[in-house]
Amino acid sequence: MKVSVNGTIFEQKDALVSIADKAVWYDFGVYENIKVLQGKIMWPEMHTYRLFKSAEIIGLHIGEEKERILQWVRNYAEVQKLKDHIIKICVYGDADKNARATVYMFAIGLTFYPDQFYAQGVKAITYQGERNFPTAKSMDTLVNFIAFRTAKERGAFEAILIDREGNAREGSRSNLYIVEKETIITPPLEDVLEGVTRVLVLKLLEENEIPFKEERISKDRLMAADEIFITATSSNVMSVTEIDQQKIGAGAPGEATKQIIQLYRTMQKEYLGR
Amino acid sequence: MKVSVNGTIFEQKDALVSIADKAVWYDFGVYENIKVLQGKIMWPEMHTYRLFKSAEIIGLHIGEEKERILQWVRNYAEVQKLKDHIIKICVYGDADKNARATVYMFAIGLTFYPDQFYAQGVKAITYQGERNFPTAKSMDTLVNFIAFRTAKERGAFEAILIDREGNAREGSRSNLYIVEKETIITPPLEDVLEGVTRVLVLKLLEENEIPFKEERISKDRLMAADEIFITATSSNVMSVTEIDQQKIGAGAPGEATKQIIQLYRTMQKEYLGR
Repeated sequence: MKVSVNGTIFEQKDALVSIADKAVWYDFGVYENIKVLQGKIMWPEMHTYRLFKSAEIIGLHIGEEKERILQWVRNYAEVQKLKDHIIKICVYGDADKNARATVYMFAIGLTFYPDQFYAQGVKAITYQGERNFPTAKSMDTLVNFIAFRTAKERGAFEAILIDREGNAREGSRSNLYIVEKETIITPPLEDVLEGVTRVLVLKLLEENEIPFKEERISKDRLMAADEIFITATSSNVMSVTEIDQQKIGAGAPGEATKQIIQLYRTMQKEYLGR
Repeated sequence: MKVSVNGTIFEQKDALVSIADKAVWYDFGVYENIKVLQGKIMWPEMHTYRLFKSAEIIGLHIGEEKERILQWVRNYAEVQKLKDHIIKICVYGDADKNARATVYMFAIGLTFYPDQFYAQGVKAITYQGERNFPTAKSMDTLVNFIAFRTAKERGAFEAILIDREGNAREGSRSNLYIVEKETIITPPLEDVLEGVTRVLVLKLLEENEIPFKEERISKDRLMAADEIFITATSSNVMSVTEIDQQKIGAGAPGEATKQIIQLYRTMQKEYLGR
């Protein structure tokens, strides 16, 4: 697999950064994961929009137009003949001067999870931790890495990050939602990343007149929810039926979650034009 | 300047990491800054000790003996004929397997600050933020980078990180101390990095029977201190005489701070053998 660096395509072995580069050293970068499904780039405009938003939050000057980066994404996907992949875009800023950033793109395989994950739900753990710039998708992701690794060690699919105030914010790689008596609750945008799938799901809820609110979710409230689900670019909408070895609701995907999984699938199919 | 990678010395241009390396991506690494002064490596054992401690905290398996890494440090300093430098050691773990880590070392110039910084003290700002793994020197340092950049933009030397409970923890690149009626107070080790200079300064305080305590320091307490100073490998002991444009104490280095600056200089000279 090749890598695009500022729009030029290199062999992956040549897409390297210096260990002594201050931007790498200090994580002065932002990133995105764009899904390519059946050869179609999924919502690239939403991802590049967020890339620039993340950069703005941490004060990183990208120095390119959004449209140009979109062209690089399209060109990379075409040249690499991507079918089912995640395109990772990683933008490192210039830590010393305010010169232009470096935009890397590379593809990794898109993970397809077994049907039973969707049909039966997955297990999660809670993990005490929060990102430093929660509204930006920055390269500062050690807490996500360690939370997710801890989940895997305990046989769970995801780790739900609990902040210092004791509120559940997001998964290590996903946005979080609970269902309380048919109302969907998700943490407010001042506390979490505005996931692309989150935007799409909230739009679906609105169009289908499913009530939802953006509110902080204490750990007690999380554990007492009727249903819990998470969303992410690679896993779409997935039911969480157990947290910290305790069953959530009936311990199986609930009606609201099943409906949203279905709505999301239909929307994705429509976007794919089939 | 060359770079040591797992003990072998390469040209700096060849000391590269892949943009797609998960350990780089997720900041799954730890680091150290070792000072070389007049050709002498300063307290390398303390730094390698802490390197292993940091690695343990984030669950990174270095896969080498401490003594071997010390040999690499000594060999690198000798081959590169280092005089006044900082050797940065950066250890990236293996994010996928539990294989050995990669140990990079490279030298950067040692910054000497003007005498007046020590004689008159420096300005600092406060910055809301804290590191995710405060007791480990991990590569997850965006908050430090942004805090320090904010300080520079405001004409200050350092940014003091204030945690969510409103306590002053540490500088973006230093440990923090206040003086209250001749007693030195510094935050406890559960909240901050155990700086090598911090260890040395506390030892000096003990030897010289200067009273000190490890306690949390609220922002109000910080601003009301008689004196404030910071310590770091590159800047040693430095007085902070202004925070957020407000004078601290008399607005000049106090007697306790001046004494500690002097004690530290004497100790450093002794270590250098002159």
